[in-house]
Parts: sequence; structure tokens; C-alpha cells
Amino acid sequence: MFSVTVRDHVMIAHSFKGEVFGPAQRLHGATYVVDVEFKRRTIDADGIVIDIGRAIDVLRAVLAELNYRNLDEVPEFAGRNTTTEFLAQVIFTRLLAAGRRGDLGPGANAVEQIRVTLHESHVASASYEGNTGAAS
Amino acid sequence: MFSVTVRDHVMIAHSFKGEVFGPAQRLHGATYVVDVEFKRRTIDADGIVIDIGRAIDVLRAVLAELNYRNLDEVPEFAGRNTTTEFLAQVIFTRLLAAGRRGDLGPGANAVEQIRVTLHESHVASASYEGNTGAAS
Amino acid sequence: MFSVTVRDHVMIAHSFKGEVFGPAQRLHGATYVVDVEFKRRTIDADGIVIDIGRAIDVLRAVLAELNYRNLDEVPEFAGRNTTTEFLAQVIFTRLLAAGRRGDLGPGANAVEQIRVTLHESHVASASYEGNTGAAS
Amino acid sequence: MFSVTVRDHVMIAHSFKGEVFGPAQRLHGATYVVDVEFKRRTIDADGIVIDIGRAIDVLRAVLAELNYRNLDEVPEFAGRNTTTEFLAQVIFTRLLAAGRRGDLGPGANAVEQIRVTLHESHVASASYEGNTGAAS
Amino acid sequence: MFSVTVRDHVMIAHSFKGEVFGPAQRLHGATYVVDVEFKRRTIDADGIVIDIGRAIDVLRAVLAELNYRNLDEVPEFAGRNTTTEFLAQVIFTRLLAAGRRGDLGPGANAVEQIRVTLHESHVASASYEGNTGAAS
Amino acid sequence: MFSVTVRDHVMIAHSFKGEVFGPAQRLHGATYVVDVEFKRRTIDADGIVIDIGRAIDVLRAVLAELNYRNLDEVPEFAGRNTTTEFLAQVIFTRLLAAGRRGDLGPGANAVEQIRVTLHESHVASASYEGNTGAAS
Repeated sequence: MFSVTVRDHVMIAHSFKGEVFGPAQRLHGATYVVDVEFKRRTIDADGIVIDIGRAIDVLRAVLAELNYRNLDEVPEFAGRNTTTEFLAQVIFTRLLAAGRRGDLGPGANAVEQIRVTLHESHVASASYEGNTGAAS
Repeated sequence: MFSVTVRDHVMIAHSFKGEVFGPAQRLHGATYVVDVEFKRRTIDADGIVIDIGRAIDVLRAVLAELNYRNLDEVPEFAGRNTTTEFLAQVIFTRLLAAGRRGDLGPGANAVEQIRVTLHESHVASASYEGNTGAAS
Repeated sequence: MFSVTVRDHVMIAHSFKGEVFGPAQRLHGATYVVDVEFKRRTIDADGIVIDIGRAIDVLRAVLAELNYRNLDEVPEFAGRNTTTEFLAQVIFTRLLAAGRRGDLGPGANAVEQIRVTLHESHVASASYEGNTGAAS
Repeated sequence: MFSVTVRDHVMIAHSFKGEVFGPAQRLHGATYVVDVEFKRRTIDADGIVIDIGRAIDVLRAVLAELNYRNLDEVPEFAGRNTTTEFLAQVIFTRLLAAGRRGDLGPGANAVEQIRVTLHESHVASASYEGNTGAAS
Repeated sequence: MFSVTVRDHVMIAHSFKGEVFGPAQRLHGATYVVDVEFKRRTIDADGIVIDIGRAIDVLRAVLAELNYRNLDEVPEFAGRNTTTEFLAQVIFTRLLAAGRRGDLGPGANAVEQIRVTLHESHVASASYEGNTGAAS
Repeated sequence: MFSVTVRDHVMIAHSFKGEVFGPAQRLHGATYVVDVEFKRRTIDADGIVIDIGRAIDVLRAVLAELNYRNLDEVPEFAGRNTTTEFLAQVIFTRLLAAGRRGDLGPGANAVEQIRVTLHESHVASASYEGNTGAAS
């Protein structure tokens, strides 16, 4: 299995509901350093998993929708805790949609799994990995 | 698959038996920077894989049993080389036991795999990953 | 010159006033990974710059005052942009006060400079370094 | 599953053919920081996955064949783009061959997968993971 | 003293002349991960050392002049070894010129020192630090 | 000012005397990831601060004297706590001596300062920086 990973980051505010979160129930924020790994079984005729330039651009665009925002005010997330785990899945879903729209180029059709990891500090991270539905 | 990873460290002394270890047969030591990744298929109603505060506390407690010790004098390890690989499994086993005692909170019941990675320097690490036995 | 550096982190929300900040004028947030370096000319009779256990505890206490907060609502910061640079100096000032209260132990009296660095992402950081006023 | 990972690096020049590469069609170069992870189900009687000293030596030897070279002039790569993905597989294949020659010691026979990751910058990496053919 | 540091990278090919370089006399290449630290004594009325958005853009522009190039063919570098140390100074000089042209905004006038560090691998880096000539 | 930094590591056992050390009074150990920075005002005719190959070899030789040892049994350190700060100075002194013996090549004569940093974990480090006595 081949993979390519690209990194970017996003800075957001939010608060959590639930006693398990302790002081994180207060409005606070985070920098998430985001790694996205695209996996496929073979490389294409150019020798690549995916057009890395497009991957970087699409990741930046997906993060721009969240960047410098208070996630408590984003209608789509109403009633949900925007935990690191949850946001990893949100980014996965939006990357998947971007790939299906063709934004990641033709190579994206052969990508079988995508893994999204959000580093919230030097000691904690969360990730979501899912299948793309590409025939393998 | 979702995952959450937390990091801590431990500083120990030990020696190894066996020619394969060369100068590491002498009494020496190591700092292990320890990453523990908890994996489960879904997140809970709070939006989390596991209570990260508990995960950090349990990891600290597991490492405290080893920290600032000469592992050559720990009865439980008698006759074993306390290699990085071996210690990764020891920590896995102790985290699993802590989870079963409830120390990791109810979310731990849904954790399907745990991966423990010990970084022994900037150029070497070892890991152990195992199933928890949680129904998947 | 000797130095000892310890690391911790803090997660906050805030917004900035001023066109130079662009989208960061909106309420957002950050994780700051904080490095504090204590510098002195000699080590003491124990062979140390400072009691590292106390240094870690004091840094945690200083960061706890900021952690999981919306800095826009902290009266002390009213009318100021809580930029990374500004916060580095705030943390410096509070560490200096803690040292003068004796919280860092006797070794702190010999510390001549303190440098505080806040990493706000994998590509940006800011720092403040100042003299403590210790005779050199 | 146990694993051991070792790190080294290599510095090369090359160019790519294909519009997808944009300015990287020009002759340029890269430092690849290379992580190799050896995975096996059990550790041996010494408590190890593999002789880490041999692993480091073999990795250095494999990278030495590429180091300080213009890959455009390496006959074996003629007609191929020596992308990060492609080079990860090349290194995998050469490590596999070294293991079969016995250069990695007897433990290598039990290694079931090898994962090779090349970090080309602080924001991009590629990897290849494959089975060794060891009975599992 | 306050400082702000931003990071970017550049990928180049080159060769060196001189026996001291050993195999690096051959055409090879490098990824340089570049950190630029801007230092000044005070922060401005906005609370910043420099407009970080402009700093990132200017650094990208300076690196773009070198990126994806064979430095052996750059007329300006004829007869010089484009070592990591040398390139750190080249980037310093170009950032200084950009600041004087106003590309870094008005805050750049108060920057007293700039430090440029090029990481060429996980085990080696070089830097150049110089005064800007700003009144202090 | 120019500088070049190289990295290596060393694994040792030791114990400390003094209540300030708490549990670190017990025999334990550490991995020190060691960064050595050589600083000089100008680069030589080859474009370098120092022969980096020699710097790496000399650092490895200096660390080899300590590596895989119980520092409590090293006669030279009798009666001293081999703290991270102390060891940074020991390594500085030995590098200085190596430079004076010519082991670092002729460029070492122009090196004005050497800074040695020992990272003992992902959250703590210590350093020693001193002048070499080179005319500046």
C-alpha cells in the first residue's frame, strides 16, 4: 500500500457540553495541526498517489471553512461537541466530497482510504480513517 | 475508525543479556517518550473516543510504576530483557487492565485496539498493538 | 551560560482588533505549546540551574490562569490584543513574580534571563526574553 | 503486533516528467528523512523484533546507493519518475532483498510487513508498506 | 527582546567544489526547512513584532526564487559553494532588502535582528543571524 | 553570526544525590538527544563554518565515551551529580579539547562559541554555551 501525507493547520474557538470535559466546557480554542494521508494500492503512470499540489490546495480550502471561527456558532455543528475526533471526521467527509467533485484530480478515484489526524498539542491528537468506496 | 493518542515519558535504567545487544549489555538507561493510541469504531454521545483526562492520568500512573527505576531489579521482569518492544507490551497490558478496572471510564469498553509506541531516541522507536477484546 | 528548558501547553480563545489581523479579528483560538528557558552563569552545588520539578509546577500554575479561557473576557487584558508576542511577555512577567515569591526555589535567584516561546502552530511561534534583575 | 522503527536520511537530485509536477519538472532535489518500520507478531527469545544495529547498518547501506546522486542518471530508474512514493517502494524492495540475504540477521525471517516512509519536508511525506512473504 | 518566527521550505539541487565535501561534490539536492526569526525590542500598538501574514508571503517569495532549481546554474552564485550556511545568509540578505522595500510592512523598520535557520535533515542545520541596521 | 548544528544521542544510567531530585535519587537512566551548535563570524573559502563530517564524527566519539554506561561508576564524575546541565558542560569541554587537537579540522580555530543542548524528553532540555577563546 502506498500513501501520501500532507500537513496544514487551523485555529478555532469552541466550547463543549458535558461534565466529562471539565474546564473545557468554557469557551476556549485550539490550533489543530492537520495531517491527511491518502492511501492507494498502486501508483499511477506518473509515479504518484495523488497530485500533491491539488491535495494541499483542497486541504487548505476545507480548513478555510473552519479557520478563525467560533465553532459554537456554525449552524452545521449545532447540538454537537466539536471535539478533535469529531472534527477529524468532518474534514474526512469534506475531503471525500472534494475528491468526488474532481477537485483532487483523477488520481483521487483510486484512493481507497483517507486518514485525517488532528494534533491539538504536543501531547494529544485524534484521528479518523475511513474508506472512500473506491474499488480495490 | 476513530482514535485518540496521548503522550508522556518515563526514564529508566536497565541492561540486556545476549550478544546481539553489544555495548547495551552494560547497565545503561533510556528516556522513553510514550504514545498511546486508543482506537474505536464510533465516538460516544459526547463526541469522544475516551475521556482524555482519564487516559492521561492512567498513562501517568502506569508509567510511574516504572519511572526512575533500575528495571534489572524489578522482580516481575526477572529473566527477561526489558527491551523497548517488551516494555511497549508491558504498558499495553497494564493499560488494558486499568481499562477493565474502570479507570479509563465507560468509553474504554468500546476501545477495540490500543497501540503503544516508545520513542527511545530521535532515530529509533518500538511499538506494540493489540486487541482489547471489545466486541466490534 | 547554562540553561534549562521546560515545556507545557495552554488552549485559549480570543479575537484581535486591527485590520492587520485580517480574519483573526473574528473570535477564534489557539493551542500554545510553551517553552520556558531559565539561564544562569553557573550551576549550584547540586549541579542544576533550577529545581525542574518546581519549574514545571510553576509553569503549569501560570498557564492554568489562562487555560480554557476566552481572553477577550479577562479584565487584565482589556484594550489589548492578546497576541502570541504579548502572551509570551505576560507569561514571562508571571514567572518572574513567582520566582520572586520563592515558588521556583532558591536557585531562581541566580537565574539571569528567562526566555518564553509560544509555538502557535507547526509554522509559527513568538517569544519574549528578558532579564530577571539577578546580579550577574 | 510488534514493530521497531529506525530513521536515517538521504540527499538526492532529480527532475520529473509530466505536467502534473509543475515547477518540479526542473532539476531540483530533496532531503528524505526515512523511517523504516519492521513488523512481526512476536518478539524473539532476546525480546526483540530485529537486531536494531543491523537494521540501522542495512538502511544506511541501502540509502548510500542513492545518497548524493542525481537520480536522473541512475540507469535502473530510466523512464521512471523517482517520486517520493516510488522511492519508498525502491527502498522497501532493497531492504527485503537485504533481509533475504541474511544482512538483517535471523530475526528478519519473522518480519511480516515493512513500512518505509520518506519525509520530504515538514509538511509532506509518502510511504510504501508491503508484506515480506514470511509465514504468519 | 520579542521575536516572531515563521517556517517554510525549499527544494533545490546543487554540487560543491572542494575535497572537504567528499561525496557531496557530486550533483545532489536538499530540502531546506527554513525558520526566520524577526527580533525587536518592543511590540507595536497592535501588539505585534511584524505582520505575520506579510512575513509568510515575503519568505515564500524569497524562497520561490530558489525553489525547484539547480543552484549550480544560477549566475549570481557562480564560483560559490551554495552551502547551507551560505544560503542562510542569502535568504537573510533578500529578506532585509524586502523589508527595506516595505514588503514586510511598517513594523519591519523596528526589527533589529533577523535569524535565518535552514534545517537540511533531522540531524543537521545551519543559520545566519545579522543586524538590520534599525536604530535600537 | 553563522552557525552549524549537528545532532546525535547517548543512553546512560545514573542517580542523583540531594533531596531536590526526589525519585531521581534512585538509579535510573536517560536518552539525551544532543545538539551541538558551532558559531563563527564568517564562513571560510569553502563556504562553511566547520567540516560537518568531522563535527559528526567528533561528536559521536565524545558521546561514545559516555554511551551505555552507568555514570555513577565513572571515576571522573565521582562526587558530582551528572545532571543534564553538568553533562552539557562536560560535552562542551571535550569538544573544545577535540577542536584544539585538530580533530575538527582547521575551521574549528575560527569557531567562537559552542552551544551544547541535551534533550532529555519531549518536555525538558538543558544546555551549556561557552566561548572557545578564538580571537573574534
